[in-house]
Amino acid sequence: MTTTRAAHLSFQPPVIAELDPDDAGAFVARLRHAIDTKTKPLGSLGILETLALQIGRIQRSARPAVRRPVIIVFAGDHGVAAQGVSPFPQAVTAQMVMNFIAGGAAINAFSRAGRIELEIVDAGVASDIEHPGNLIVRPVARGTRDFSVEPAMTFEQLDQALSIGVQRVEYHAAMGSNTIGFGEMGIANTSSASCIMSRLLDLPIDACVGRGTGLDDAGLAHKQAVLGAALAKHPVDADPAAVLATFGGFEIAMMTGAYLAAARARMTIVVDGFIAPAALIAASKFDARVLDYCVFAHTSGEHGHQLMLDKLGAQPLLSLGLRLGEGTGAALAMPLLRSAAGFLSEMASFESAGVSGRSGH
Amino acid sequence: MTTTRAAHLSFQPPVIAELDPDDAGAFVARLRHAIDTKTKPLGSLGILETLALQIGRIQRSARPAVRRPVIIVFAGDHGVAAQGVSPFPQAVTAQMVMNFIAGGAAINAFSRAGRIELEIVDAGVASDIEHPGNLIVRPVARGTRDFSVEPAMTFEQLDQALSIGVQRVEYHAAMGSNTIGFGEMGIANTSSASCIMSRLLDLPIDACVGRGTGLDDAGLAHKQAVLGAALAKHPVDADPAAVLATFGGFEIAMMTGAYLAAARARMTIVVDGFIAPAALIAASKFDARVLDYCVFAHTSGEHGHQLMLDKLGAQPLLSLGLRLGEGTGAALAMPLLRSAAGFLSEMASFESAGVSGRSGH
Repeated sequence: MTTTRAAHLSFQPPVIAELDPDDAGAFVARLRHAIDTKTKPLGSLGILETLALQIGRIQRSARPAVRRPVIIVFAGDHGVAAQGVSPFPQAVTAQMVMNFIAGGAAINAFSRAGRIELEIVDAGVASDIEHPGNLIVRPVARGTRDFSVEPAMTFEQLDQALSIGVQRVEYHAAMGSNTIGFGEMGIANTSSASCIMSRLLDLPIDACVGRGTGLDDAGLAHKQAVLGAALAKHPVDADPAAVLATFGGFEIAMMTGAYLAAARARMTIVVDGFIAPAALIAASKFDARVLDYCVFAHTSGEHGHQLMLDKLGAQPLLSLGLRLGEGTGAALAMPLLRSAAGFLSEMASFESAGVSGRSGH
Repeated sequence: MTTTRAAHLSFQPPVIAELDPDDAGAFVARLRHAIDTKTKPLGSLGILETLALQIGRIQRSARPAVRRPVIIVFAGDHGVAAQGVSPFPQAVTAQMVMNFIAGGAAINAFSRAGRIELEIVDAGVASDIEHPGNLIVRPVARGTRDFSVEPAMTFEQLDQALSIGVQRVEYHAAMGSNTIGFGEMGIANTSSASCIMSRLLDLPIDACVGRGTGLDDAGLAHKQAVLGAALAKHPVDADPAAVLATFGGFEIAMMTGAYLAAARARMTIVVDGFIAPAALIAASKFDARVLDYCVFAHTSGEHGHQLMLDKLGAQPLLSLGLRLGEGTGAALAMPLLRSAAGFLSEMASFESAGVSGRSGH
């Protein structure tokens, strides 16, 4: 039953550079010194200092800036929705895509408030979408197959999805974006994310399943049973290609490719909740260096999310009880990146401002 | 030793309206319904939903907006600095004011990043300040007296400081601001805030004293001893006027007046860390309704801050390990208010967007 990406994929993961090249010790020390000599008590900006250091390293600059921040929302349908694992009908995926392109969803409001570019990609929605043109139409198919019965997609489809994810990021890199986040929409995609997490991190499924958009106890038990049976049915190796092809969604596979491309482009990647880190785990199995370019937007109420963040060694910026997806956590966190880059770039030092340092006390 | 504000102050606290007038039940229910029918799973925006509800109630609108957000930084010196309670020399207050007006401090960088107006007020700095005009010069005196020896200020000085705080907020209300935060700068002002907190909340001083900008163990023990002795020396009642006059700073007293004026103007008030909530406690002793207009920006590393937040029933928005002051926490939180108001004002409902609701599952 073993499958490996080498055997099945033509996709070549983008080559990600080391975060700190050879001179890194010196450059990182210079950044730390810049942060420490700003006109503030040592360490007094807390996590923002860690964030500024990381952005400086990613941009290789002691005067970093958040330029043209963008969120790409990938939308796709999941055959496993037929198993009743979500309280919402599958038609909601297409309806929400229409809501996104009409500007009426939470991610629209947050992107406007945060001055963030927003792109919506049809990665493979099952229902018809009426749209006025401002939708990036790249469906791999009209939804995946039901992975409780058969693999969700072919390797050819996975190849296609990964490449589209890369292409969308390359477009925004060419437009000047250096900060990016990924959101998703897809009824039943927490089921897909839970199976990917369980298999790639070798965790029991019950630790990876949550209430998604609002399952009750009976619904949760049903979801756990469906996913447990699916995992037993497909004992694929913990290989990212095999796992994505078996349990993935087209939107999750596109996001996986997008992460790798964003790291190659030396963008700061803002990781949203639950679905987004599941795709990141898959990306990190292609190339672990992708993680150096990631900051984690928030912890959510979703069971399994905290566990995933722990496994990724993440220190999330926000804890607001969000459990919506769409990239909403990433959108809310982006202003903090702007402030972190801003203080590193713009603050005076004790010396330049003529401010006295602390006494020996 | 009893002193009451009635006996000593000519200051008349601004009259703050009830958050919800008579029809409130219906209006609040309408807001909740608007939030609950937005195109998202029920409750899935977590704390942002609580925030949106509060902003809607403050603005009496189901389409609230954050308009011309502003942070006022009040700066003043403290006679108690002579007792070595801070590791920084007193001259730093004036130096930092010059840094603020030159645009080089953390609050400048954060205000620019967050598109927030920033005003700096000389509330009573001890040292000379060279400034190019963009400083609001309202010093009550060149620093307070040393409260370890004598009361920090006279009631006439307190009157003046409270009124200046009111006036600065009235100016910004007239300019169209509906969202405001207050910052401070003043070497040794955590000592002042700790004594105010201890006396007004009837807490032992050791529970209210922290390391401020970075005291070591010996420094902390010294600070606790100085403040404990000062509190014993001045057994004033838990009356806000008496406590402010005895232990206050001019910047803290201005902030107290400013809170009351902001609530009267139905602004949303974003409360920064440690010094800012100490002033808020004083304001709430003049009129507890001020608290209905407040949101709490963050929890900090400062000992006593969490205790103060608990006493105020606060649910802070951020936890970033900040311990700087200047209003930096308020500046970082303001974008969240923009997003909260934005989703309530702009998101479609399930009905208006034609999105299906959840099934009976």
